[in-house]
Amino acid sequence: MPRRKSAHFRLCPRAIFRHDGRVRIFDLARERAVIESAEAVIGWDQETYLPAAAGACRAAQLAWLSAKAHDLATSDAWRRALEDAEASAADTSPTHRGNLRELRRSFDRATKLPVALVARAAEAASLAKHAWAEARSRGDFASFAPHLQILLDIAREKAERWGYANEPYDALLDGYERNTSTAAVSALFDSLRPELRRIAARAVEVSAAHAPTLPPGPYPRAAQQQLNARLAAAIGFDFTAGRIDTTTHPFCAQLGPRDVRLTTRYDEADFTSSLFGVLHEAGHGLYEQGLVEADFGLPSGTHVSLGIHESQSRLWENHIGRSRAFWCRWYPVAQECFPQLAKFPLENFLRYLWRAAFSPIRVEADEATYDLHILLRFGLERQMVNGSLAVADIPAAWNEGFRELFGFTPADDRQGCLQDIHWAMGGLGYFATYSLGNLNAAQLHAAAHQQPAIAAASEQADYAPLLAWLRSSIHSHGATLDPAALITQATGSPPSPTAYLAHLQTRYL
Amino acid sequence: MPRRKSAHFRLCPRAIFRHDGRVRIFDLARERAVIESAEAVIGWDQETYLPAAAGACRAAQLAWLSAKAHDLATSDAWRRALEDAEASAADTSPTHRGNLRELRRSFDRATKLPVALVARAAEAASLAKHAWAEARSRGDFASFAPHLQILLDIAREKAERWGYANEPYDALLDGYERNTSTAAVSALFDSLRPELRRIAARAVEVSAAHAPTLPPGPYPRAAQQQLNARLAAAIGFDFTAGRIDTTTHPFCAQLGPRDVRLTTRYDEADFTSSLFGVLHEAGHGLYEQGLVEADFGLPSGTHVSLGIHESQSRLWENHIGRSRAFWCRWYPVAQECFPQLAKFPLENFLRYLWRAAFSPIRVEADEATYDLHILLRFGLERQMVNGSLAVADIPAAWNEGFRELFGFTPADDRQGCLQDIHWAMGGLGYFATYSLGNLNAAQLHAAAHQQPAIAAASEQADYAPLLAWLRSSIHSHGATLDPAALITQATGSPPSPTAYLAHLQTRYL
Repeated sequence: MPRRKSAHFRLCPRAIFRHDGRVRIFDLARERAVIESAEAVIGWDQETYLPAAAGACRAAQLAWLSAKAHDLATSDAWRRALEDAEASAADTSPTHRGNLRELRRSFDRATKLPVALVARAAEAASLAKHAWAEARSRGDFASFAPHLQILLDIAREKAERWGYANEPYDALLDGYERNTSTAAVSALFDSLRPELRRIAARAVEVSAAHAPTLPPGPYPRAAQQQLNARLAAAIGFDFTAGRIDTTTHPFCAQLGPRDVRLTTRYDEADFTSSLFGVLHEAGHGLYEQGLVEADFGLPSGTHVSLGIHESQSRLWENHIGRSRAFWCRWYPVAQECFPQLAKFPLENFLRYLWRAAFSPIRVEADEATYDLHILLRFGLERQMVNGSLAVADIPAAWNEGFRELFGFTPADDRQGCLQDIHWAMGGLGYFATYSLGNLNAAQLHAAAHQQPAIAAASEQADYAPLLAWLRSSIHSHGATLDPAALITQATGSPPSPTAYLAHLQTRYL
Repeated sequence: MPRRKSAHFRLCPRAIFRHDGRVRIFDLARERAVIESAEAVIGWDQETYLPAAAGACRAAQLAWLSAKAHDLATSDAWRRALEDAEASAADTSPTHRGNLRELRRSFDRATKLPVALVARAAEAASLAKHAWAEARSRGDFASFAPHLQILLDIAREKAERWGYANEPYDALLDGYERNTSTAAVSALFDSLRPELRRIAARAVEVSAAHAPTLPPGPYPRAAQQQLNARLAAAIGFDFTAGRIDTTTHPFCAQLGPRDVRLTTRYDEADFTSSLFGVLHEAGHGLYEQGLVEADFGLPSGTHVSLGIHESQSRLWENHIGRSRAFWCRWYPVAQECFPQLAKFPLENFLRYLWRAAFSPIRVEADEATYDLHILLRFGLERQMVNGSLAVADIPAAWNEGFRELFGFTPADDRQGCLQDIHWAMGGLGYFATYSLGNLNAAQLHAAAHQQPAIAAASEQADYAPLLAWLRSSIHSHGATLDPAALITQATGSPPSPTAYLAHLQTRYL
């Protein structure tokens, strides 16, 4: 039968949002989460199964939902409900207070921008994305520069309206990594730089000397899918509450509580490409699956920041997925899936996983060299936003910064300052979270493995104890603590590069 | 990267709905269509790829969207915009007037029901669906009877509020087949009954004597998918604007203009099960793909009724898909897909497709016996709604009516009056549209093939001319004409059983 609204959809009861009769702002927050999760379903479909000719209506669906969520979260009803809850002293638990604190923070942030500025930003980003794609394909920075100038002006205007303690970049960073100061991140990165350059250079040298290559493909896609699903399940990903599908650009999306969708892409010449993509996204997914389901839509049931999110993906991808213990357990299974691995010893496979090389392209970088790309972008962005680097001077500054870190200059702007989409989307302030994720991952991994039971289990490739520790130390707290406080509480010390550098030294030196 | 709203969804422009500056009610209607198409995406995902544990949030998403669409379409703004457009004489084209007429009709229908009644109906149907499933599994009509009584009372109350010309059932039928009188359908069915019984009895007799059986499986699922897609494309289904996925209960859903999703299920013992399911749903899909894209959301860009929708699916499934000409072209391809068909001659395969048998179960019925099931249900429903059949008497009336039509009595109520979900969903008035679809399909098929060019092409299994005729005669009119007027305009005569009986006689006698 054709699917018609009369037959099915009209039968849903109209008022099923949970009303606990106490805190109305929480009902509104849950309603917003329902709208945003509907957006997520449509966004997921757009990337996975949408027929080629069907794009236009999706933009309208997403725009409509996005507008409704924004209208709700900036409404007078929302403000009044938030004020009512703040004025009431009925519940003084840390979770309750954390929820109200975070709802206040995001409400203030959202309402400080006039609607016209939000619309202008959306339009500018839409135009800039097209211009960037065109400019990148031709390596023509000059044609993108006017768009970047507009986006930068808008970002600065937002920063002024949001307000900041020390410098405008603080306000942008706060959108991705809340209550994190630019100066603190800069100090962290400064302390990382010399050691990171030393480790990267040495890792590249060692890798070049050994030059391991994977036995030739094809590694059939169906066998990759089977292995990926088995290993995602082995680290704890719950397939009754999630799936893996295929996209051009891999991602992890939460479409609702107990509904986490991972995606990957396949390269039949190298099965590790999709596999480590899946382990990375499954790390994000384990975080989403570990959030408190009953608190869906509340800060206590929401991820806290990109730097914490990325710590979960990097921990499972790099600390577990590239570890010797993991492959002692799983390499025989991979060899069953792919007969060409039969005569390729585990040691060679591990050297292949740990290979390092300098690339001009961030998304092709390996663990040993990745953060150098981030240090470069963070430094440039900060200067751009704070006004000490003009848009026209970006290519030269990029190339000079790159040469200092990597020892060579990119061939052109396609390989340089035009490579990433982030700026073209207005995403200034985003990049730092990738390296914060790496630092957090190492610190969490080290702290967990100081517990003998976790260390012993991980040595046997049994990750249930580690996941349980992450559930209780990170996932279950949602966004009720700031990222730095969460790391400090979980590991016993504030965020620092110590564990990360120790990890890189052990693996690469 | 994890998919986060900050990175993508917030960048959509907020006001992209087309505003033609003339008729604001059309903008509102388009907005409603965007909301309902978002519901359709989520409903489709729910049936295809939703992880097992993820159901609860989907109900909330669908309920929220459904409420928003309903609120919009019954709002004062909608009413005023409709009145403004009706008062303006700016556009006197038949399409424009048809759009306003249909928007008025559906607005009046929607606003005649108080919100409390709509909510009560939804809740009753939700409870009844569970009770029905339970009752059916135990063959216990008595436990379902109180729920059916409530739903029947609600249906009658709705009928009174909607109003009707002759009898309450008119008002219910109108929800599926607008401006169609119960008396007219009854007369049509009465004229069909004796001939239909004669043809069915004879077809079953002939079929029993020949008893063709398909060569044993397995018919591998992958090969079925390949053949199904090839044949759906052969009848004109556009895969750049649609897909086929797998579900337990096959359906066709439009997720937006140029986005039509078909689903099917696979039986490795019999490839014709999924294939004819796909041809049926592709028939629905061709209708949706043939609607005027620029009029998405307006009556002129929407299907008109279930009886017309079903005519499209039945035409492609039965008149084309079970025709000799179709299989002269495609049976060799099926034989390539399934080697066990190599020694199974085309004539046997056609006899297999044309087999007939009396079944107590509607959804298992073949073309020759299907409508008898509908005649039974239509007659009982009409009595129930008009008050001449009490709920407690339904099982006996069902069994007696069944025996008169089929010559035997169902073994129990599981095989009888508990078999269909429709009543449990409050869907009284729906069943007649299945047979109206069969009649319309035959009438359209016959009229089209009176054109020599179409007849000649179909004889060569080239269906482009037939599809073009359906596009211009049916699809492109959307819902601007009533179903009977549409059939009359397309075929030159009002709806009648003549063509359908002629088709059945040719095929089965």
